[in-house]
Amino acid sequence: MKHFINAKNNIVTESLDGFLATTTTRGLARLDGYPHTKVIVRTDWDKSRVALICGGGSGHEPAHAAFVGAGMLTAAVCGEIFASPSVDAVLSAIMAVTGAAGCLLIVKNYTGDRLNFGLAAERAKLLGFRVEMVIVADDIAIPDADQPRGVAGTLFIHKIAGYLSEKGKNLAVIKKAAKAAISECYSIGLSLDSCTVPGNVKDDYLGLDEAELGLGIHGEPGFSKIALADADKLMDTACQKLAATVPDKSFAVILNNLGAVPPLEMTILANAYLKTELAEKTGLLIGPAHLMTSLNMNGFSISLLVLDEMRKVALMSDVGASGWPGTRVPADIKILELPEAGQKENYEPSRNRVVETVLYAVCTMLIKAENDLNFLDSRIGDGDTGSTFSGGARSVGEAMDSLPCDDGSELCMALSGILSRNMGGSSGVLLAILFMAAGKSYSDKPDWASALLQGAEQMMHYGGAQVGDRTMLDALMPGLNVLMRGRSMAEAALTARAGANATAQMSNARAGRASYVHTDNLLGVIDPGAEAMARIFETIAAII
Amino acid sequence: MKHFINAKNNIVTESLDGFLATTTTRGLARLDGYPHTKVIVRTDWDKSRVALICGGGSGHEPAHAAFVGAGMLTAAVCGEIFASPSVDAVLSAIMAVTGAAGCLLIVKNYTGDRLNFGLAAERAKLLGFRVEMVIVADDIAIPDADQPRGVAGTLFIHKIAGYLSEKGKNLAVIKKAAKAAISECYSIGLSLDSCTVPGNVKDDYLGLDEAELGLGIHGEPGFSKIALADADKLMDTACQKLAATVPDKSFAVILNNLGAVPPLEMTILANAYLKTELAEKTGLLIGPAHLMTSLNMNGFSISLLVLDEMRKVALMSDVGASGWPGTRVPADIKILELPEAGQKENYEPSRNRVVETVLYAVCTMLIKAENDLNFLDSRIGDGDTGSTFSGGARSVGEAMDSLPCDDGSELCMALSGILSRNMGGSSGVLLAILFMAAGKSYSDKPDWASALLQGAEQMMHYGGAQVGDRTMLDALMPGLNVLMRGRSMAEAALTARAGANATAQMSNARAGRASYVHTDNLLGVIDPGAEAMARIFETIAAII
Repeated sequence: MKHFINAKNNIVTESLDGFLATTTTRGLARLDGYPHTKVIVRTDWDKSRVALICGGGSGHEPAHAAFVGAGMLTAAVCGEIFASPSVDAVLSAIMAVTGAAGCLLIVKNYTGDRLNFGLAAERAKLLGFRVEMVIVADDIAIPDADQPRGVAGTLFIHKIAGYLSEKGKNLAVIKKAAKAAISECYSIGLSLDSCTVPGNVKDDYLGLDEAELGLGIHGEPGFSKIALADADKLMDTACQKLAATVPDKSFAVILNNLGAVPPLEMTILANAYLKTELAEKTGLLIGPAHLMTSLNMNGFSISLLVLDEMRKVALMSDVGASGWPGTRVPADIKILELPEAGQKENYEPSRNRVVETVLYAVCTMLIKAENDLNFLDSRIGDGDTGSTFSGGARSVGEAMDSLPCDDGSELCMALSGILSRNMGGSSGVLLAILFMAAGKSYSDKPDWASALLQGAEQMMHYGGAQVGDRTMLDALMPGLNVLMRGRSMAEAALTARAGANATAQMSNARAGRASYVHTDNLLGVIDPGAEAMARIFETIAAII
Repeated sequence: MKHFINAKNNIVTESLDGFLATTTTRGLARLDGYPHTKVIVRTDWDKSRVALICGGGSGHEPAHAAFVGAGMLTAAVCGEIFASPSVDAVLSAIMAVTGAAGCLLIVKNYTGDRLNFGLAAERAKLLGFRVEMVIVADDIAIPDADQPRGVAGTLFIHKIAGYLSEKGKNLAVIKKAAKAAISECYSIGLSLDSCTVPGNVKDDYLGLDEAELGLGIHGEPGFSKIALADADKLMDTACQKLAATVPDKSFAVILNNLGAVPPLEMTILANAYLKTELAEKTGLLIGPAHLMTSLNMNGFSISLLVLDEMRKVALMSDVGASGWPGTRVPADIKILELPEAGQKENYEPSRNRVVETVLYAVCTMLIKAENDLNFLDSRIGDGDTGSTFSGGARSVGEAMDSLPCDDGSELCMALSGILSRNMGGSSGVLLAILFMAAGKSYSDKPDWASALLQGAEQMMHYGGAQVGDRTMLDALMPGLNVLMRGRSMAEAALTARAGANATAQMSNARAGRASYVHTDNLLGVIDPGAEAMARIFETIAAII
């Protein structure tokens, strides 16, 4: 497994400095204790209210530093990866942020954290600080566990305590509310793969057809291996386990990304959650987001908290901590009527001998040229130019009787629609753009050369190619320009042919298919799009 | 590679529904065109201002749906994974949100997107809509590319156009500002690994010691393979490439997570960026965050935009789109003085014959008991209880001459400090907690039994064990309770011994080391912590 790290010893300090330098949380600082003491604190804090301190090993980002801010934590004490911070570091944090209102330590239930935060609390008390501690133990993975782990449900406790502190509640009230919330908080994790501690070899204990349920956040194997399944099934498995544990009440949910699940898949998991039996009891949604990760774990966790009025208000309140993704009330997805796409297809058919003859001749020619053009394309591309053009020609031919041949503008629109739907490839859309713009131009000024030139210019605008890029433009544009100067179709055809032939000497393909081909393979081969255009001019010149 | 998906055909619609159901962006809806037309629109939109539409293939989440909202996009048109949306879908989006003020299409420079958005624009014009289109081409990976790809720099354009639209600027002004910003926008990507399209086999074209520089966002190989290196070096390589391209002006930067980089590593990359030559010219910071991903790519991209006054204001302005991570001005990290940790160590040494005798005897006994206790522990744990206790005893013995033996409270504090620093293991911190709390209690009420009981209770509180859990508590608590009832030390020792012996019959270890051991292996073995406590009581009883 590859990681973006430098020296292993600096992972946490570099991460915290990178966080401090880029976070949108205002007024953060760190204590001057690197590398041993890694404490992030609020500076916009006057100690008049109850301080809230969390922490533990690192590797759980954005926890805990990104949850320091108005309305959430006052300080975060960060250990090395998956290792508890020292007693001294915790004590420094307590001393830095605690005033007369006291301080609540919010600790996840791991022996190291309990003891180090505990001893620091006792030392702080001796120094005259009022300190209380609550222990979050929300993991339900292990049945009848006496010491359930503290995982992402911890965020609920941060948020509720943070709200109450912001409101000026006293330490006893906040501690009581935190303990009550902890007792009604439940989490379960599910992962497709183990995480890797940077620098360590990956422990591949899961098979290709396995996932794991009931994992912690320190890389320990999950409580059980389960069969790999689709997202709906995996989410349902996790939620069934929660449903068997939680009381029949309304709750808030945290959808937590454990590290490396891409945003696309997290939204699929969110959608899956809303199909489970838990959905209808879900009163508030938080995430999907990274809240409490386990390094690069390719998994998610679901945390539930039973709701009451205070908790609802607390969870919905605004905070100044950049890690908090916000909270919302579930609601049905709004679906708006699809606008009628305005594809006018019911043109009034009309007859025009010259136009019909030209169209018929060009279509017939292109159908016959299929093999020639495919052959040219096979030298420089994927060999389907002939098929693409002949396919367009066939679909126009089939529609001939219903075309508005006597209305130049409408005819162009109709051709645009037919080609965009039936021709395929980039060429189909390009020609559809050409005819669309030409139709618009023709309705303003009924002149074919001018209209088609306008169309070709729009095609260039959207397609990005220019004359000289070895595309159909190298025949089309010279031909149209000759017509614009009032010259004959025969002269235009000669010019278009010269333009097409010249592409055989062009090695600097900068757009279209030939731009992907090595220069040497292009020389001597006429661009098949330009060849098609030249033949179209020649075909028309033979008629009019 | 394992993914959280269901049927491959539903990936995008399920993702969008999961997004709509959970996003904190207010007032979003989708058009009723699933599965073909996947368009996310604002419903809090009165068409009085210029509509902004972006889109393209999916797999780039949170782009583009999560950037729809007040101050950014008006609609996002989402194709299948890495595939352009259809002309009809784009046209539907235009029709749904465009009023008299018109609409700007912001398109990333890929042929499919250019053509499909382009044809839709032409159709919309024909229907009477005012539509303009700009093409973002910010990728600098390929030297002298005529058609640079559009990547994460697109977000700058969304934000600037969104701000101007919100301010009521007209279509011409917004288009001009967008084009100007596009011409001063530069991006480069770097990845440790290729991405996997769900359902496809992974194309492992990078070796274990390779990374790639100059990648797009569709899984195509990067422009060059480079040697794997540490985060600072990789970031510097990417930034050098940018530095050679960007003008010597102040710019904003986007630090973009391409998909699967865990938050910890993104902050290390952010820290690395701030060491590069680009740092001093960086006037605004956005991210690190997921903005424009490439599925689960384990890589990042850096995008720069030359700043002027309008762009600064635009980028700093608030938006109502959940995908925008916010913008900040770079600033030095604030470092606060580390509080004096209040470790009072300079106790006044004092003499007390009884206390000194007890301490000396207990220490001597524990040092001698090292092998016995290690042996017991080897039956149920890692065999180091004896070493841990004897280590603590040795450190107390060495400090004996300087201890405040005639001040019970200070003595406890001193022992707490010595044990927490020197004893090691959980036992060291647990006993440090015990003596700390005992010292505090003794200063209120100079009674040894009462003080030690208070200490033991704090130890239980933080350690989480109870009597009966097969720990040192099973000897300590009964012994202390006997003393509390005013009985002799001899009686206490007998009771402590009975408690220790009883642990040999306990199979329900719920805390401490034995909780990890199978029940059958515990029976018949006295807990080594309890044995140590019993011996301490017995040693003291023999003296006083």
